[in-house]
Amino acid sequence: MRSFKTVLFVLFAVALSACSKEEKISRDEPIKPIPVSVVVDKEKVDLGKMLFFEPRLSKSGFISCNSCHNLSTGGADNLPSSIGHKWQLGPINSPTVLNAKFNLAQFWDGRAKDLKDQAAGPIANPGEMASTHVLAIDILQSIPEYVQLFKNVYNVDEITIEEVTDAIAAFEETLTTPNSRFDQWLRGDENAITAKEKEGYALFKEKGCVACHNGAGVGGESYQKFGVVKTYENDTETLGRFNVTQNEEDKYFFKVPLLRNIELTAPYFHDASTWNLEEAVKIMAEYQVGLEVSKEEQGKIVSFLKTLTGEQPAIQYPILPPSSSTTPPPDRS
Amino acid sequence: MRSFKTVLFVLFAVALSACSKEEKISRDEPIKPIPVSVVVDKEKVDLGKMLFFEPRLSKSGFISCNSCHNLSTGGADNLPSSIGHKWQLGPINSPTVLNAKFNLAQFWDGRAKDLKDQAAGPIANPGEMASTHVLAIDILQSIPEYVQLFKNVYNVDEITIEEVTDAIAAFEETLTTPNSRFDQWLRGDENAITAKEKEGYALFKEKGCVACHNGAGVGGESYQKFGVVKTYENDTETLGRFNVTQNEEDKYFFKVPLLRNIELTAPYFHDASTWNLEEAVKIMAEYQVGLEVSKEEQGKIVSFLKTLTGEQPAIQYPILPPSSSTTPPPDRS
Repeated sequence: MRSFKTVLFVLFAVALSACSKEEKISRDEPIKPIPVSVVVDKEKVDLGKMLFFEPRLSKSGFISCNSCHNLSTGGADNLPSSIGHKWQLGPINSPTVLNAKFNLAQFWDGRAKDLKDQAAGPIANPGEMASTHVLAIDILQSIPEYVQLFKNVYNVDEITIEEVTDAIAAFEETLTTPNSRFDQWLRGDENAITAKEKEGYALFKEKGCVACHNGAGVGGESYQKFGVVKTYENDTETLGRFNVTQNEEDKYFFKVPLLRNIELTAPYFHDASTWNLEEAVKIMAEYQVGLEVSKEEQGKIVSFLKTLTGEQPAIQYPILPPSSSTTPPPDRS
Repeated sequence: MRSFKTVLFVLFAVALSACSKEEKISRDEPIKPIPVSVVVDKEKVDLGKMLFFEPRLSKSGFISCNSCHNLSTGGADNLPSSIGHKWQLGPINSPTVLNAKFNLAQFWDGRAKDLKDQAAGPIANPGEMASTHVLAIDILQSIPEYVQLFKNVYNVDEITIEEVTDAIAAFEETLTTPNSRFDQWLRGDENAITAKEKEGYALFKEKGCVACHNGAGVGGESYQKFGVVKTYENDTETLGRFNVTQNEEDKYFFKVPLLRNIELTAPYFHDASTWNLEEAVKIMAEYQVGLEVSKEEQGKIVSFLKTLTGEQPAIQYPILPPSSSTTPPPDRS
């Protein structure tokens, strides 16, 4: 049964990739449309979805990946910073998981090279899910349905964190938001965006925003200093890329965030210093490119930014298997 | 468009109710099959689903109805008691929302007469979602998409808590779990349950469990004292039905919990004193009916109880509209 499904998916993938070769993107712009994603291993993706929504990966049994990367609300929690174990408040705004595959690395400081590497972090972070990889695996291994699913997907009897994070990453790879109105316009539908939105896009390019916010993710492809042309004073303790490289010149460098679905994920910036998208545009113009943008220009740019909201992933809420008599109980302390 | 949809649903409802009139339940047993539920107002149910998953109904913007009544895990959080605002631990185990419509009233002490009445409680409980009805309404009223949805469903411009709880209750009405193996057997499929499970059911009746655990919910239809034949000492501060009636003789009376999907919702009892279903059966027999049940009998009864797990609700995870510039921000303090 499984190999038949796999064959079907591979055929489907081949068919779609044949289509995509034929796709002509009508406009040659620095922003690229999000490619339609193809699920090639549905069984793995489904397992990853279960794990993404699995509160038993946390010490308390209360917090899942989805708690802070809520797929109902743009793939983020829309809080200044996330709430972790025992209501600890995180040090930095949680980025969206939507389209995260388009980032050159994960976390604001890029300390995880990919989605798989990222997924291992919060589970064992004492301020977040506060579990350990050993405990998380003990829990999964105590649940017969999970043992069977890992056997089906990975042909293993003993689950390790490698399979857990691989499956979560496979699910996250599917969390893209294609067919935004902007992408429809990129693909040639002249009427997909309004005159005002086109003016906003023209300003977005003119003012230099597009230098960093480009590609399929409209960002995520480089690290940039917060405060290129003017020192940003608000938040001097969050050191960004420096955490990873220990290079003095990487202080206050952050991964450029994706602007896809940006209207869904206030508050903005690593320090969540504004809830208002117009103000975010103004701050970026002032600190990053040294320009003033008028109220009217802010409005036009924001109207363009809202065209970047794409189709949100259609998620069938997973049903998780019950714990067994040997499952370590949750610990809220 | 809306009236066309309504007509379709009404037709569908009529058709199904015609079918159900023809349904012959083959066995006359004290436990009744869960009727197949019919959604008669999909637009209201969809709005209720959004509100059920809406973290902005809490002060922190982090806790939704689904946080403690998680539809991935049997409609409960499977914690000894729920985690509320600022990690406050609740005083009592959270009952499942699945099949809750079959309860004679809501909460362990029956203080809410129905699902609508219940839904108003946790939003404004300082130990749970810690919001107020005024704040929750201010938030919804500040979000244009919600204003439009309430207009569509209730023909109101000003949202009140009445519509909010009505919509949540309408969604919760749909959260039934029909077609368990036991219900298939009730409907005449002799092979739907095994010989051991049938023996378990026979014991369940013989030992007197069925006196309280009967009907479609396999419970939920009366209040009973925890400790009918033997004083239950563990938990003398949780007074149960007394909270509502102030009658001395109602002390330690609790609503009989539903046994539907019971394998999914450990830990058990209002005080979560056991994670183990065999032990729960033993305790009930000892304190409620004054009988000893052997290990073998416990095993058989538990095997019967597991046949009560039905089809879990198929939920398309809702996409929630973004906050607006006038939405009160979340407050994690």
